[in-house]
Amino acid sequence: MTDPQTPLLDRIHSPQDLKRLGREDLPQLSAELRDEIVRVCSVGGLHLASSLGATDLIVALHYVLDSPRDRILFDVGHQAYAHKMLTGRRAQMPTLKKEGGLSGFTKVSESEHDAITVGHASTSLANALGMALARDAQGQKHRIAAVIGDGSLTGGMALAALNTIGDLGRPMLIVLNDNEMSISENVGAINKFMRGLQVQKWFQEGEGAGKKAVEALSKPLADLMSRAKSSTRHFFDPASVNPFAAMGLRYVGPVDGHNVQELVWLLEHLVDLDGPTLLHVVTKKGKGLSYAEADPIFWHGPAKFDPATGEYAPSNAYSWSSAFGDAVTELAAQDPRTFVVTPAMREGSGLVRYSQVHPHRYLDVGIAEDVAVTAAAGLALQGMRPVVAIYSTFLQRAYDQVLHDVALENLNVTFAIDRAGIVGADGATHNGVFDLSYLRSIPGVRIGLPKDAAELRGMLKYAQEHPGPFAIRYPRGNVGRVPEGTWPELEWGTWERVREGDDVVILAGGKALDYARKAAEGLPGVGVVNARFVKPLDGAMLREVAAKARALITVEDNTVVGGFGSAVLEALNGMGLRVPVRVLGLPDEFQEHATVESVHARAGMDTAAIRTVLAELGVDVPLEV
Amino acid sequence: MTDPQTPLLDRIHSPQDLKRLGREDLPQLSAELRDEIVRVCSVGGLHLASSLGATDLIVALHYVLDSPRDRILFDVGHQAYAHKMLTGRRAQMPTLKKEGGLSGFTKVSESEHDAITVGHASTSLANALGMALARDAQGQKHRIAAVIGDGSLTGGMALAALNTIGDLGRPMLIVLNDNEMSISENVGAINKFMRGLQVQKWFQEGEGAGKKAVEALSKPLADLMSRAKSSTRHFFDPASVNPFAAMGLRYVGPVDGHNVQELVWLLEHLVDLDGPTLLHVVTKKGKGLSYAEADPIFWHGPAKFDPATGEYAPSNAYSWSSAFGDAVTELAAQDPRTFVVTPAMREGSGLVRYSQVHPHRYLDVGIAEDVAVTAAAGLALQGMRPVVAIYSTFLQRAYDQVLHDVALENLNVTFAIDRAGIVGADGATHNGVFDLSYLRSIPGVRIGLPKDAAELRGMLKYAQEHPGPFAIRYPRGNVGRVPEGTWPELEWGTWERVREGDDVVILAGGKALDYARKAAEGLPGVGVVNARFVKPLDGAMLREVAAKARALITVEDNTVVGGFGSAVLEALNGMGLRVPVRVLGLPDEFQEHATVESVHARAGMDTAAIRTVLAELGVDVPLEV
Repeated sequence: MTDPQTPLLDRIHSPQDLKRLGREDLPQLSAELRDEIVRVCSVGGLHLASSLGATDLIVALHYVLDSPRDRILFDVGHQAYAHKMLTGRRAQMPTLKKEGGLSGFTKVSESEHDAITVGHASTSLANALGMALARDAQGQKHRIAAVIGDGSLTGGMALAALNTIGDLGRPMLIVLNDNEMSISENVGAINKFMRGLQVQKWFQEGEGAGKKAVEALSKPLADLMSRAKSSTRHFFDPASVNPFAAMGLRYVGPVDGHNVQELVWLLEHLVDLDGPTLLHVVTKKGKGLSYAEADPIFWHGPAKFDPATGEYAPSNAYSWSSAFGDAVTELAAQDPRTFVVTPAMREGSGLVRYSQVHPHRYLDVGIAEDVAVTAAAGLALQGMRPVVAIYSTFLQRAYDQVLHDVALENLNVTFAIDRAGIVGADGATHNGVFDLSYLRSIPGVRIGLPKDAAELRGMLKYAQEHPGPFAIRYPRGNVGRVPEGTWPELEWGTWERVREGDDVVILAGGKALDYARKAAEGLPGVGVVNARFVKPLDGAMLREVAAKARALITVEDNTVVGGFGSAVLEALNGMGLRVPVRVLGLPDEFQEHATVESVHARAGMDTAAIRTVLAELGVDVPLEV
Repeated sequence: MTDPQTPLLDRIHSPQDLKRLGREDLPQLSAELRDEIVRVCSVGGLHLASSLGATDLIVALHYVLDSPRDRILFDVGHQAYAHKMLTGRRAQMPTLKKEGGLSGFTKVSESEHDAITVGHASTSLANALGMALARDAQGQKHRIAAVIGDGSLTGGMALAALNTIGDLGRPMLIVLNDNEMSISENVGAINKFMRGLQVQKWFQEGEGAGKKAVEALSKPLADLMSRAKSSTRHFFDPASVNPFAAMGLRYVGPVDGHNVQELVWLLEHLVDLDGPTLLHVVTKKGKGLSYAEADPIFWHGPAKFDPATGEYAPSNAYSWSSAFGDAVTELAAQDPRTFVVTPAMREGSGLVRYSQVHPHRYLDVGIAEDVAVTAAAGLALQGMRPVVAIYSTFLQRAYDQVLHDVALENLNVTFAIDRAGIVGADGATHNGVFDLSYLRSIPGVRIGLPKDAAELRGMLKYAQEHPGPFAIRYPRGNVGRVPEGTWPELEWGTWERVREGDDVVILAGGKALDYARKAAEGLPGVGVVNARFVKPLDGAMLREVAAKARALITVEDNTVVGGFGSAVLEALNGMGLRVPVRVLGLPDEFQEHATVESVHARAGMDTAAIRTVLAELGVDVPLEV
């Protein structure tokens, strides 16, 4: 691929090619990378702003370090587009997040340059710790550099890993990529501290543990450090003493994360020091693209746009997230006990309006799902009715908090679980296909799968008015709008027959119900049940359909291991009913990125697959035209 | 209850009674409480050392605060025996951890004075955050005090909660009960920092956010603070600047946690300040009991002992933990890739010898299970063969790390899961009865349940020599010793017929197999299979027994929801086999503290229960003599 606009980038097919450039060429290379990233991302659905922000840093890291021998870890991994392009994947960039194409994140099985497979935040430091111990146990000498955003650093496991990294003192470089926001605006005390630091251009401490190493540094860095020391206001302002130094890390920064030559110079001096070093780099999300710099939250993962102007077709789509946000905003106006907790997903969970209308009943804990769930427990213990708004894949990070902090005392906590089921382009790290299995085994957690926005609202209201924990899971994507004030009455645990038919009955809830209904169209004798509650099941209706049917089909947007179909098998076995059941859903393997429809088709759980199963069961299914 | 040795304690039946004492009486009250705690704990199996260490602090807290209106939270909750005695539960102390008796931890349903139900570490701060928000949303004014140990503070969710607490600035008191160890010796940079602080008797900062409040303080505290400010060595030693102040908390301490009058005086001044205050209290585990102070790790939860002398009958029992520790120590001598990771459970997981023999292939990350699992992922990515030694109940805290950081890339990580199944006296918070369900649904995680130490060793060796993640789960309790060098060959996924019989076949692994074998004794036609692998199942053997048997019985020391029985139902349904299955195991509710045998009997899964089921299935079961 040759592009007249990218003469330098055209010469780079590996990090080795990059090292052949003079460092005076690096700013232009960064600019070319950014231009290409904008072009690549203009098709929509890609991580634009964070990738632009990290480009200079990535160029500098690959210029100084020697990947794949040296290990470069990217926390979350969605900011690494420049890394992909510099490590031989430029030609494949148009396949990003498409079926069979590049992952949107770093992925070990995709490239030897991808040190970790990732998608969830805050994991890079614990990985780096393990890698450093492995290196030292094997007597190796390579370097380890972990790039972690300020948002990811609000996650407990990152903080806890820092604690051990500071204690053990193994050599590694941690680059804090501080862009002043994760997806939402950042929260938290450490974040406040970092904002404070940025008042000073150069703030850098002399330190104890790394003293010998510092003395061995070249003159320029020594000069830099003495300059920094003369600017010691922060030492005397106890609200902003340095928590990284307190944890035992050598702290350097903050430095300009867009001065690529300066970054190279700094990295050359820092990368071989003894012990752990934290380089605090300040970057701008959306760097180099005026409209993205101005509104980096919108440009975090924009839809299709014109790269020259930033114009895009505004969407009128009404998402499940919006439906939830509207419902909970209305509910909170009626019920002073409603309180919404989010782990850094105000925009993603549809909570922008809620946070403005009910600011005193809104808590964003940063990327700390465990804290979100347990803070909700604390709220519930004191009489509130908290709603934890969380993606299915991220609730995995608070499994024990749901069990130990909420379910054990049957606390009144509602989980509004967004992005449940296959999410599509974000792929294996982000699919929410385990929640039915892991939540179902926790005593007392009731699980509902609304078929539409009205049912979502009915379930939410029910949950707010009844004791104990409730989980309401709904998929990524859009849903029909319903009028304000729509609050259908429904009894938790009751299924709904949506199509009569007793010969073969399909049981499905949520998104899977759409497939089931379409599959049954025009087939006499095939019944469809809206199995909108997975816990408890509607035992009466299950008994009734199982007693008459030749066979049942369960369909779920969840792993078939321990999921809804398994719950049906358990219930039927308990009733002593031996009707054959065909369990459709996601097979027991990770589902890679592709469209939702494609994944469902491959899994054998979409409309066509259900019709095939019906035919196998002897139903007279006409051939598709 | 009157005891000539406890004249003050005899007068106290509630916190109100305590407030009637003069503060000059408090040291004696503390001494009486400690004496009583020693007597109570001498029956064995109770949390002695930590409860002794926290007694003065608890007396001071109840003297100053007004529980239950004011909320006092105890992290982990095992140090709160004095709290139980001061809140009306003294007479029930002999029932601690016994069936129907008091919980070993704080428990909301046990007393209005127990603010949280707890057992796992690091949850108190997120709970306190939620409670503070609830209080403020409801316009209430009560105080919230969370007591958290230095060990619990190494947990990420505690650190992440601190981050938000510091940011939001809601009034609360955090008492850091710093006893220099959790169960093991503590690790981590924050811990090092605290050790540094203790060099100074008084170190306390002036602060920004709370300045106005401080000015309003009484003269003595103002004096105290100016004394503290004059001792500012730590300000100039960047290795030990104060991370709590950096996070936005008012930091006071360290103070002597055994000077109860001084604690009262301090609490009176601190408890109504604006914003969050952290009081750093230094205590001694085992305080007041010479032999416990000398070896607090041993006296953390001792067996039966003579309270006067500390004498106890040494145990010759060989635990599953020891069997694992011996096996992994031997394995690591043969295989330089073996590396053991523990989240602060060196003693509990049988790793004392390992840590001495292989110190460079051993990592203790503190109470941070997520970091333990992801550090193991990092080790595996760089060619090591990490073994994460962890209790079943604590692995719940790393569910997502198992899935996202290990299983997604099929990394070579072995999970040695101790205390799986019912643990008995520690009760609902500590039972390991969900792991079969939550691990089974994660693609690629293979699960084994050894029946004895030899099988444990065979599975461990197999796991170290084959790719991908393996989970080996074994119960609390003892097991027969096997000679060094015992490495039985076994193929993962193969079951073992341990008793012939085709009429009714019992499938059970691990501890449940013992019940199954005893239940089948003397009953012709009843077969028993050692279902030692739950994933994958032995499909061939399952098909074989299911084809012949009138009925199958599955028995598991796990919830029946989504567990082993459910796996068998899924497999049979997939094979189109419709043999009736009786699924025995733990019902879908939390199991309270009692002996393991009692819980299993109540659950209907012990030997007697299996015989009852056999009788119901028409097997000729003789009446028990």
